[in-house]
Amino acid sequence: MTTAVTDRYPTRGRAPAVPIPRAEPVVWTGPGTGPIPDAVVDSYDSAGFLAIDRLISPVEVRALRQELARLCADEAVRRDERAVVEKDSAAVRSIFEVHRISEPIAALARDPRILGRVRQILGSEVYVHQSRVNLMPGFTGQGFYWHSDFETWHAEDGMPLMRAVSVSIALTDNFPYNGGLMLMPGSHRTFVPCPGETPDQNYRESLREQEIGVPSQQALTELAAAHGIEQFTGPAGSALMFDSNCMHGSGSNITPFPRSNIFLVFNSVDNTLSEPFGAPRPRPEFVAGRDFTPLG
Amino acid sequence: MTTAVTDRYPTRGRAPAVPIPRAEPVVWTGPGTGPIPDAVVDSYDSAGFLAIDRLISPVEVRALRQELARLCADEAVRRDERAVVEKDSAAVRSIFEVHRISEPIAALARDPRILGRVRQILGSEVYVHQSRVNLMPGFTGQGFYWHSDFETWHAEDGMPLMRAVSVSIALTDNFPYNGGLMLMPGSHRTFVPCPGETPDQNYRESLREQEIGVPSQQALTELAAAHGIEQFTGPAGSALMFDSNCMHGSGSNITPFPRSNIFLVFNSVDNTLSEPFGAPRPRPEFVAGRDFTPLG
Repeated sequence: MTTAVTDRYPTRGRAPAVPIPRAEPVVWTGPGTGPIPDAVVDSYDSAGFLAIDRLISPVEVRALRQELARLCADEAVRRDERAVVEKDSAAVRSIFEVHRISEPIAALARDPRILGRVRQILGSEVYVHQSRVNLMPGFTGQGFYWHSDFETWHAEDGMPLMRAVSVSIALTDNFPYNGGLMLMPGSHRTFVPCPGETPDQNYRESLREQEIGVPSQQALTELAAAHGIEQFTGPAGSALMFDSNCMHGSGSNITPFPRSNIFLVFNSVDNTLSEPFGAPRPRPEFVAGRDFTPLG
Repeated sequence: MTTAVTDRYPTRGRAPAVPIPRAEPVVWTGPGTGPIPDAVVDSYDSAGFLAIDRLISPVEVRALRQELARLCADEAVRRDERAVVEKDSAAVRSIFEVHRISEPIAALARDPRILGRVRQILGSEVYVHQSRVNLMPGFTGQGFYWHSDFETWHAEDGMPLMRAVSVSIALTDNFPYNGGLMLMPGSHRTFVPCPGETPDQNYRESLREQEIGVPSQQALTELAAAHGIEQFTGPAGSALMFDSNCMHGSGSNITPFPRSNIFLVFNSVDNTLSEPFGAPRPRPEFVAGRDFTPLG
């Protein structure tokens, strides 16, 4: 029997849960080919992420926060299936495909400060695989358990290889104690298969709280022992770029300081989606875009 | 009508929820009267806490961790009402009055390194108001919402004034990201009354998760804006001493790194318990000791 596409990274109960070494590169260009200094590119290559202090200015942060407030107050947006609204508080927690809802966020996805860096990492033209805004409240922020985005995108969206980059732009200050992102540096070089078969329509639950696509405690213990944990902290306007396979998660936020960010995922046009590798059918386009037109 | 004891700090729905300035001192001795250097005493006076790097040695840490493991495996201890056992996992989360259960922990409560510092802060002989060990697991550690211990001890135990000190001795490394204690420096100078009447037997629930004795979000927002937030981090063996009225809490712990500590509360013999100021009857002795014999 032959299959059209080889599955280099079997997961979701389709193989023994043994870690698989990454086969493809992390950085797809040579030295001196873009705005990121070579030493920083090297650290991205080994850690799987890099932070950019104050990528956007305080004036831009203020404008984007106003845009988020406007979106969250818009009844049409709140009723849209792309908005994740908390049951108890009726607060908007996320809005997906937000670069097709908001003109300022569409412009941000094309901003040369972001796009230039992303193309440098991925070595090709890119398109938006997913975009969203996240709003984590103070006092009751829930956090998100450890996961590799690529594991989900591969299993549920059909992304063949690890050739995607996420950019998170902080619109609030990230302290070590208000639920900011934790990452395991170097974890992007290991694919951790996750147990369990993917239920149909899994995304409806997994956007709130992930139960499938969760690494075992043993795998996480080994990864954390090997790599340690780092946190993304910094003032509003700072950005984090991270590899699609970097193991990451976030804890709760009981502080009065809320967190919000804009999250943009760029995939290489040479890595476009096939059928899902570990799910009955693809997730909807607002979670995993299938318009592969390069950003220009 | 006259009451035997004046209630300087009404709470639990017995007064408008307006913050009350602290009346009594934080440090009850003058300069040069104990093992803590004067500059550190001054910082305790203004912040409401101080950290001691490696108060006990790695050998002592190892011995105490073995003692905790022994206690948690002891069926008699597990069945004792003083043990808080998680419903789902059957794991021991806390053991109260542990200085009367464990000889090594009784010795620790009398250790001159601890007792000397505590007497220096409180300016008198002291006794143990409460002792416990806490075991916070990795991956699923729940954290504890913001609270002032004194608010509970005053309302539910009848502690008249803020003349008690807590000492937390870390038996595991405290990182910024594995659910360690957060404190608001300077918050110990303000008493924040909490809304709601205390239900009878409230302690049974509140030892797991506090719902009564919780400050309002508005009060916490104001305190955090005024004082900021600091975290207690450091290697195993380090200790934190903090004032009974310091606002503190902890977030969740999704990392593989568990946390455990020994928690000892010392109260001045000049501040012994009366009837509760905001509860139908006193909590049991294993939560709030009424043997006021000075430690010697």
